[in-house]
Amino acid sequence: MSHPASPLALPFPAMPPIAGVEVRVARARYKTWDRCDLTFVTLAAGTTVAGVLTQSRCPSPEVEWCRKALVLGQARALVVNAGNSNAFTGDRGRQAVEAIAARTAAHAGCQPSDIFVASTGVIGVPLPIDKAEAGLDAAFTSDLCGWEAMAETIGTTDTFSKGATTTAIVDGRTVTLVGIIKGSGMIAPDMATMLGFIFTDAAVDPAFLQRAMTAANAPSFSCITVDGDTSTSDTVLAFATGAAGNTALVDDESAGADAFRAALNDLCHQLALLVVRDGEGASKLIEIAVTGADSDRSAHRIAMSIANSPLVKTAIAGEDANWGRIVMAVGKAGEPAERDRLAIRFGDTQVAEGGLALSGYDEAPVAAHLKGQEIEIGVDLGIGEGKATVWTCDLTHGYISINADYRS
Amino acid sequence: MSHPASPLALPFPAMPPIAGVEVRVARARYKTWDRCDLTFVTLAAGTTVAGVLTQSRCPSPEVEWCRKALVLGQARALVVNAGNSNAFTGDRGRQAVEAIAARTAAHAGCQPSDIFVASTGVIGVPLPIDKAEAGLDAAFTSDLCGWEAMAETIGTTDTFSKGATTTAIVDGRTVTLVGIIKGSGMIAPDMATMLGFIFTDAAVDPAFLQRAMTAANAPSFSCITVDGDTSTSDTVLAFATGAAGNTALVDDESAGADAFRAALNDLCHQLALLVVRDGEGASKLIEIAVTGADSDRSAHRIAMSIANSPLVKTAIAGEDANWGRIVMAVGKAGEPAERDRLAIRFGDTQVAEGGLALSGYDEAPVAAHLKGQEIEIGVDLGIGEGKATVWTCDLTHGYISINADYRS
Repeated sequence: MSHPASPLALPFPAMPPIAGVEVRVARARYKTWDRCDLTFVTLAAGTTVAGVLTQSRCPSPEVEWCRKALVLGQARALVVNAGNSNAFTGDRGRQAVEAIAARTAAHAGCQPSDIFVASTGVIGVPLPIDKAEAGLDAAFTSDLCGWEAMAETIGTTDTFSKGATTTAIVDGRTVTLVGIIKGSGMIAPDMATMLGFIFTDAAVDPAFLQRAMTAANAPSFSCITVDGDTSTSDTVLAFATGAAGNTALVDDESAGADAFRAALNDLCHQLALLVVRDGEGASKLIEIAVTGADSDRSAHRIAMSIANSPLVKTAIAGEDANWGRIVMAVGKAGEPAERDRLAIRFGDTQVAEGGLALSGYDEAPVAAHLKGQEIEIGVDLGIGEGKATVWTCDLTHGYISINADYRS
Repeated sequence: MSHPASPLALPFPAMPPIAGVEVRVARARYKTWDRCDLTFVTLAAGTTVAGVLTQSRCPSPEVEWCRKALVLGQARALVVNAGNSNAFTGDRGRQAVEAIAARTAAHAGCQPSDIFVASTGVIGVPLPIDKAEAGLDAAFTSDLCGWEAMAETIGTTDTFSKGATTTAIVDGRTVTLVGIIKGSGMIAPDMATMLGFIFTDAAVDPAFLQRAMTAANAPSFSCITVDGDTSTSDTVLAFATGAAGNTALVDDESAGADAFRAALNDLCHQLALLVVRDGEGASKLIEIAVTGADSDRSAHRIAMSIANSPLVKTAIAGEDANWGRIVMAVGKAGEPAERDRLAIRFGDTQVAEGGLALSGYDEAPVAAHLKGQEIEIGVDLGIGEGKATVWTCDLTHGYISINADYRS
């Protein structure tokens, strides 16, 4: 975490332990840094798992491993490496994942397919097996630590540690959900953000957990973008230990299913926004709400076209109410739109309507809104009922500095 | 042209006049600047026209006007306004275009549908009709000027004037083609770049001219991107006066059709690259050649995914051979790709092959290549015969400064 904290940073919240989950961290020294970079999480017998993974056609071997292991729905341990994504490393990368799973399974007394592995960092350098194994051995015997230490350990260019928690009443029992996540560049998750991990003590059947996770992903991780660049390693995994003792959730009819889904949705929403708050170079958090579109899918595409437009993002960085650039981004999205029905607002102030600028709109509240840290852009297409909301950050000199002013 | 010239700027070439074309410029004072900002071009009776226009769903009224007028295929004058794009201005914008066409037609003694109009600049402010009319009246009576003056007059944030010329032997006669073009932000033409104008003394049937222009557009203007943002006003028009006296080109069997098409292709290629050379903040011109893809269309999409990736563009700005970001951009394109067949080169040096880094490749030529102004990235997918080449520029602090560090 070498860059100064994002101006949009939030403090790490108080997060309770989850019965059945034990976290340890260690130094594998994947880079020449003096910090923990390997996380080892043990999960009680019977823990179920679900996940969403990058849709990249060039995924890391970790993503391929998790995709296979998720089919079985059972988890006993999670290993996370930071500083090396192990992506695009051929057979040597696959061997590293297999070695980690084998060693961890031997330690935990389970099958390798019960072990989940995620890595983040530079692409193209095979994860060194010797460092991974030495790191794991150190982690196996190290003291337990808390969520914040894990959040720090999985981070790379993140400028602050990110976590969120919530609860739900399920089957008469209070279940707790916690999540931690890391960003902060190469963020345009197709099905997930870079690395996010959710733990709950609820008892949840893996198929139901997967459906709930897929549903929670759609309006959260799939609705954020920092730079439109989708990582090779995007992974969000949710683990349910069952220690809360509720009757396992198996479908929508189960007692507490709605409450659990709502809590999971809330948690994913919180985590997704934390990633945007730590977008590389971000100075403003931007919410883009598109309504009146031909369909929800069309609204989402238009919102993402706005959110990924460098001209819109730089205008917001410059606190410039340049709604012409929003018109441009709507126009280029390739989705149904009628120029002369388009309406645009900043915050609560309508600035354009019916295909042209609102004459004499009050610029003062717009200017005041744009000076803030949290910007709302509303776009109504006026042609249908489709809607979507996405979140992004502005594009500043900070992004260029982080990504151009050094050599990898 | 307030910013310093792009380091990639080229001098304006010597460009011959085209018989049947007369250029005049004037001050309409669309902005508070002391420069010519209105161009008036008269075209000899019998001039044919073809064009490609933005695919934006929110086009300017000028684009709609040209789309309609192109159906008739005849042109007698062209008016270009700089400093105000007149886009997203409702009825008042349409009225401005109609007023310009009517006044120009009255002066030229032709139909309004023979007049072509294009405007570039800020979005959302109706073009002031009084200024346009006063500017036109001044232009009608001003002295003839040359191509460079026209190129300067149509420019906005362009940092250098851009033109190109070529010739072809058609039906035993030498025909000349000249083109001028302006950039330089909001460049990801869907069918055209912001504003480009091509003039030739060849006699060309409008239907053939349109087919040739559409074909020339595909590998040139449709293969460049500065920031992935498609303008509301993209327009390229080609005018053929017929003054060279050749038998009119009507189809591919006409004498000289191949030579004319080749010359038009060459001219469009030259003009398109000039736009990239003046991309906002550009310090390097980047050619991205994708081969071995599933289809040409798929290759184009992958090449554009690379060309529009902020992480790839900032890596090149930092002279960083970060091919992992290229893998990422291939992976996110959503096109058929097999990670373990992917090969990547910088310049002539292969850096990755068969899904992993080439061990021990010589970094010296790669570093030397990346220090240059013209960068070549080659990506072979290894799965088919599809190929495409696109051009972009790097993403630098200059882009942010131009687009964020001011208020519009």
